[in-house]
Amino acid sequence: MTSRQMILGMQFSGGYGAAPGAWRLPGANLNSYTDMDQFVRYAQAAERGKIQLLFIADTPVLDVDLDHHAPHHMIDPLLILTVLARETERIGLVTTASTTFTEPYNLARQFKALDVISNGRAGWNAVTTSDPAAAANFGATIPPRAEKYERAHEVIQIVQGLWGSWEKDAWLLDVDGKRFADMDKIQPVNLQGKHAASRGPLPIPPSEQGQPVIFQAGGGSYGLELAGRYASGVYANPYTIEDARAQRKALRDAVKRAGRDPDEVKMLAGFMPTIAPSRQAALERRRFLDEVVDLNQRVRYLGAMIGLPLGPAQLDEPLTADQLADAIPSPHDPRSARALEVAREGWTLRDVLAHGVIDYHPVVAGTAADVADHMQQWFEAGACDGFSIAIDSYHDGFDAFVDQVVPILQERGLFHDDYEGPTLRENLGAHEQYGLDPRLTRPARS
Amino acid sequence: MTSRQMILGMQFSGGYGAAPGAWRLPGANLNSYTDMDQFVRYAQAAERGKIQLLFIADTPVLDVDLDHHAPHHMIDPLLILTVLARETERIGLVTTASTTFTEPYNLARQFKALDVISNGRAGWNAVTTSDPAAAANFGATIPPRAEKYERAHEVIQIVQGLWGSWEKDAWLLDVDGKRFADMDKIQPVNLQGKHAASRGPLPIPPSEQGQPVIFQAGGGSYGLELAGRYASGVYANPYTIEDARAQRKALRDAVKRAGRDPDEVKMLAGFMPTIAPSRQAALERRRFLDEVVDLNQRVRYLGAMIGLPLGPAQLDEPLTADQLADAIPSPHDPRSARALEVAREGWTLRDVLAHGVIDYHPVVAGTAADVADHMQQWFEAGACDGFSIAIDSYHDGFDAFVDQVVPILQERGLFHDDYEGPTLRENLGAHEQYGLDPRLTRPARS
Ligand SMILES: Cc1cc2nc3c(=O)[nH]c(=O)nc-3n(C[C@H](O)[C@H](O)[C@H](O)COP(=O)(O)O)c2cc1C
Ligand SMILES: Cc1cc2nc3c(=O)[nH]c(=O)nc-3n(C[C@H](O)[C@H](O)[C@H](O)COP(=O)(O)O)c2cc1C
Repeated sequence: MTSRQMILGMQFSGGYGAAPGAWRLPGANLNSYTDMDQFVRYAQAAERGKIQLLFIADTPVLDVDLDHHAPHHMIDPLLILTVLARETERIGLVTTASTTFTEPYNLARQFKALDVISNGRAGWNAVTTSDPAAAANFGATIPPRAEKYERAHEVIQIVQGLWGSWEKDAWLLDVDGKRFADMDKIQPVNLQGKHAASRGPLPIPPSEQGQPVIFQAGGGSYGLELAGRYASGVYANPYTIEDARAQRKALRDAVKRAGRDPDEVKMLAGFMPTIAPSRQAALERRRFLDEVVDLNQRVRYLGAMIGLPLGPAQLDEPLTADQLADAIPSPHDPRSARALEVAREGWTLRDVLAHGVIDYHPVVAGTAADVADHMQQWFEAGACDGFSIAIDSYHDGFDAFVDQVVPILQERGLFHDDYEGPTLRENLGAHEQYGLDPRLTRPARS
Repeated sequence: MTSRQMILGMQFSGGYGAAPGAWRLPGANLNSYTDMDQFVRYAQAAERGKIQLLFIADTPVLDVDLDHHAPHHMIDPLLILTVLARETERIGLVTTASTTFTEPYNLARQFKALDVISNGRAGWNAVTTSDPAAAANFGATIPPRAEKYERAHEVIQIVQGLWGSWEKDAWLLDVDGKRFADMDKIQPVNLQGKHAASRGPLPIPPSEQGQPVIFQAGGGSYGLELAGRYASGVYANPYTIEDARAQRKALRDAVKRAGRDPDEVKMLAGFMPTIAPSRQAALERRRFLDEVVDLNQRVRYLGAMIGLPLGPAQLDEPLTADQLADAIPSPHDPRSARALEVAREGWTLRDVLAHGVIDYHPVVAGTAADVADHMQQWFEAGACDGFSIAIDSYHDGFDAFVDQVVPILQERGLFHDDYEGPTLRENLGAHEQYGLDPRLTRPARS
C-alpha cells in the first residue's frame, strides 16, 4: 500500500516555528515575522535536505492572542512564496487560499503567476475556511457547509479552467511572421456556476509543470469529495497510526470514486518533532518553548483527557499511584492513550505536557534517531505517504531536521537522495494536468 | 506653482515596452513576458537613474489581440513587484488594483505585505475598473459609476483602516516579559460600508514608511474626488501643456476641497519617448515598432483627426497642398493640432504616424536632448509635477533614458541627484500617514 519513499514537506507559518514560544528561543531573530532573509535561509536549508515542498498554512484572520504567542500565519503567503521562488531552485511552494473569500480569477492569476515565476513549483491548498472571524474580515458569515463546498467545487474548476485557457502551444513569438501568439488558442472559458463565474481567458502561458498542483486539507465527507476529485496532495492530522490508516483508506476510496488512481494522491501526516542530543535535552527545550503557554489550562485539559481532575498545584509532581489506577483515557480523543502511557513513565505533569501529548500533531521530543524511528514506523505501517513537518523552531530546527534526520531516512532508503526533477509535479509524483481534468464531468458553461 | 524638481516614474507593463511591436526588437528577449530576470534588470537600471518609482498599470483582463501585440499587462503585478522589492533598494513599487473586483481585506494585506517586504516602497493605484470584459472575469458587470465610486471610497477607507490596525508601537518582542505584542494596540476596525466591510485587525506591523502610498488615475469629477481625498500621486494623460495645466488645477482644487495641501499630491503626466542618436533614427525605430500595427486603420483615424478622408494608398506620401489647405484639426481631440503641425512639415503619412501623433501619450521621437527639452518645457510651464515614462522598448529603452536623458535633466537642475531617503513616501514628497487620514471624516462603524 505505501509508496516506496516518503514525501516530506516543511510547514512554514507565522515566522518563528510551530511551538508557541519559538520567538523567544535564544539566538533566534526576533523580527523573523517580517524578515524575508530568514525565510530564504530556512527554505534554502530545506532544499539542501531535498525536502519536496514548503507549506504555508493560512487563514485570512488574526486567530491567536499576540500578547504571548507569535502569529500563526504569514504576513502574506503568496508574496513570501514569490520571494522564495527566486531564491530557491527545486523545492515546491505550496500555500492555502480560501475558495470562499477570494475571487477565482484572482486566485487563478496569482497561483499561476507564482507557478511561472518558480518555474513550475507552485501548489494551491484549496480550503473553504471555517473561522467566522475570517468571514468577518470580508464583511461576511461562513455559509452553510453544503453551499460552501458547492462553491468550492465551482471555484476550483473555474481556476483550473482558467489555468488551461492559454493553450500549451499558443505562444508563437514569430518575429518575421509578426505573430506574438495564436489567439485561437487563447479563448474565453465562460465558466458559470451557481456561486462563482469567470469568462477568461487568463493570459498566462504554461509553467514548466503546466499549472499549479492542488492540495486539500482536512477530512469529512465534503472535504474527501473535494480531495478525491482534484487533489494531488492532502494534509491530514491523524494522532495515531490506526487513525492515519483509516484516514488514508477513506481518502483513497474517495479518489477511486472520482475515477482517479489512488496512487496519484499523497497523504501527508502532520508531525511535530523536537530534535536534541537526548530525550532529556529535548524535553528541556520544549519546557522552555512552553513558557508562554497557559499551563494551568493545559493541565486541566490533560486531566479531562485521562479522566482525572488535575490542577496546576500538581504541575511539578507525577501522577500518584491512586491517580494512575483511576485514570481512563477518553475514547473521544485519540491522543489520550499516549498521554496516559507517558504519565505512567513517571514524568511530572509539566514533563508529560512537554512530551506534546495534547498538541495538535503527534510529537516526538528526542534525538534525530527517535524522530526517524517514528517516521519509519508510521510510513511502513501504511499510515501516510509522507509527513508535513511542523518543526518547533525554524531558527535551528530546519537545519537540525535536514542535517540530522534526513540523512538517517536516506540511509534507511526511506527518503530520496535528490530531487526527481525541477517541478513540484515530478517531485510529488502527481499526474500531468493542464486545464480541467478530462476525467471529471465538465462544469456548466454559460 | 511647480515643485522644484520633477518626480519620475517608469511605466512597466506587459513585459516588452509601450510600443506594440517592442517584443520584435532585435536583441530583445522574446520571453520577457515571463522572465523575471529581465524585469529585475530593467528595475535596477531605473534605480541607477534615481527614478522615484516603477508603475505597473493593470486591469484583470486580456484586453489586447495577442496575434500581433504583446499583452498590456503583467502576469501578476503584485508578485512581480515582490520580486523587484528583493532585488532593488530604493525605487518605489506602485501598481494598480481594482476597488471593485478585489476584497478590501485581501488588498490591504497584499499591499501592506509588499510594503514590509520592500522596506517601505509600495504604492497602490486605486482604480474602479471600467472594462466590462474585466467585470466578466468576475462573473459581474460594471456597476453604475456613482455606485462604483461609493464602493471605491469605502474600500480605500477600509484598506487604510486595516493598515493602521496594528498600531505603530504594538510590537513588543519582550523576551523576558514573555510579551510578543500588546494586543490592546492590535484591535478590530469594524468598518462597515454599504458595499464593503471588514472587521480586522490586519496583523501586519508598520513598514519603514508606515503604510503604502495611494495613487489615483484618470480624471472626471468622481476620479478627482477620490484623488483629492486619498492620493499622494495621480496619473494623468494630458496631450498638451494647456490640457495638463487645466487637469493639474482641477486636481489641486479637489485636494483643497478635501481639506488637504495641494503640494502633497503629485500629478505625473504620461509621456512616451523614443530615444535615438537623431530624429531620423528615432523615426526609423518607431516605424519598425509600428510594423505590427494596423496602419490602414491608423491613417483613417489620422484623417478623422484633421478633417480629411485619408486612406492607406497615401501612406508613403505627404499631404498635398490642397489637403493641407482643407485640413481642420478636430476640436474634440487635443492631439489634432500637433498632428497637423507635423503633417505640415512634409512627412509621409507613415512618418506622421511614426511621430506618435495619435498615441495615447504625448510622444517625442528624437535625441535625448529633444526628450529632455520637452520635459523641461512641460515642467516649467506648471503642466505637471513629473512624468510617467512609457518607454517604447524596455530592452534598451530603460538604459537609454537613464544613461542619456537623466543626466541632462540633472545637469539642468530639474531632477534630483540621489534618492531623498529609503522610502517611497520620502522620495515622492508625500505626507506622513498611518491608518486613516484624520483630516477626513471618519467612515461609519458597525
Ligand atoms: C492538516 C490540516 C491543515 C489545514 N490547513 C488549513 C489552512 O491552512 N487554512 C484553513 O483555513 N484551514 C485549514 N485546515 C482546515 C480544513 O481545511 C477545514 O476547513 C476544516 O477541516 C473544517 O472543515 P469545514 O470547512 O468542512 O468546516 C486544515 C486542516 C487540516 C487537517
Ligand atoms: C494615466 C492613466 C492610467 C490609468 N491606469 C489604469 C490602470 O492601471 N488600470 C485601470 O483599470 N484603469 C486605469 N486607468 C483608467 C482610470 O482609472 C479610469 O477607470 C478611467 O479614467 C475611467 O473612469 P471611470 O471608472 O470613472 O469610468 C488609467 C487612466 C489614466 C488616465
